[in-house]
Amino acid sequence: MKISKEFRTDAARRLLQQDRLALQAYQEVIKSIEKPVWPPGGTTFTIREGKNENGVVPIKEGCYIQLEDVFDWYREKELTVLKQEKQKGGPIDVYKEFTTNGNVLRVGLEFETGNISSAHRSMNKIALGLSRSELDLGMILLPIKALAYHLTDRISNFEELEPYFELMSGRPFICIGFDADKVSSSEDIPYIPKGKDGMSKRSAKKWKYRKLK
Amino acid sequence: MKISKEFRTDAARRLLQQDRLALQAYQEVIKSIEKPVWPPGGTTFTIREGKNENGVVPIKEGCYIQLEDVFDWYREKELTVLKQEKQKGGPIDVYKEFTTNGNVLRVGLEFETGNISSAHRSMNKIALGLSRSELDLGMILLPIKALAYHLTDRISNFEELEPYFELMSGRPFICIGFDADKVSSSEDIPYIPKGKDGMSKRSAKKWKYRKLK
Repeated sequence: MKISKEFRTDAARRLLQQDRLALQAYQEVIKSIEKPVWPPGGTTFTIREGKNENGVVPIKEGCYIQLEDVFDWYREKELTVLKQEKQKGGPIDVYKEFTTNGNVLRVGLEFETGNISSAHRSMNKIALGLSRSELDLGMILLPIKALAYHLTDRISNFEELEPYFELMSGRPFICIGFDADKVSSSEDIPYIPKGKDGMSKRSAKKWKYRKLK
Repeated sequence: MKISKEFRTDAARRLLQQDRLALQAYQEVIKSIEKPVWPPGGTTFTIREGKNENGVVPIKEGCYIQLEDVFDWYREKELTVLKQEKQKGGPIDVYKEFTTNGNVLRVGLEFETGNISSAHRSMNKIALGLSRSELDLGMILLPIKALAYHLTDRISNFEELEPYFELMSGRPFICIGFDADKVSSSEDIPYIPKGKDGMSKRSAKKWKYRKLK
């Protein structure tokens, strides 16, 4: 998979220049989304051409495996503002606390695979985490429009959310749009299964079950 | 129908105190949402008890008829930032320009009947209109949780969006939560039809077809 589009607020740009941990967080996310290949066992990501013919779960799963197993990120981090104060709203998808010399940088990431209104909710959740100082950097991953065409119906894409990125101004926020390396009409390339078909069972590494050091 | 909950940013509070037109806009919206009655021909709004048993379209329609026919609001106002600059995203549901002594106050309203993520998109659209100075006041109407229980499945409610209202800080924004006057288990009260069943045909007064004065 490759990175095709990216948006950074000025606040995110400054943070990445000034904070080594923020740069590391960003690079870990980039490496993780670049990791998935298709078909399995190959070296690149080739998507079989076809409107709404491919699933997105194996892409997300491939990225999560990297984040969790290689880079030690956690899934499902509740925000205190939602969980305890407001008592509603779900957790952040993926989260990591980077520590060095007693400094902590808290990074939240949403891998968006829902429709466009769902992407708005993801962005607002990150905005809330940032404004309440529960996150120091927030990121969203989603496919660009050209790739989304071949994926599950109504999945949101980078370009669709793009008009609203300016609402994140002043907050350290990055949105990353990924794309397949190649599109192929060859029948040798299988469609990516939809739902969880063909996925091996795997336990998500959840934040609430982390071992406290 | 009655108003049961309300959120105003400080910016909205100041605007309503200082600007007669803003107060008028607010009052027109309040009067319009208070207008629907149930069953038809009555004087109050009594909802027949039942989880997800009632439709919401007749409520919205009753409010829109007031806004359009009595108070001269228009439907489907495109924002320039979305329509022309970004070339994506739908219009604001209802819109009016209030004019006095050469001053203009532009007010946008979203009547939210979709799911919670759709409500996030509505709020972000209003935020964008305000930050781009295409709107001077933005409002959202939606049912409170207790009423939503009896309405179409998965419709969003005031309390569900409430945790995110603080993201509108600094922008003149008001969210209004409405509720039925009474809940009844009597079989004499019909359920509100879902979809457009039983609605008389009516042409929405669209902004793009307005007569220029």
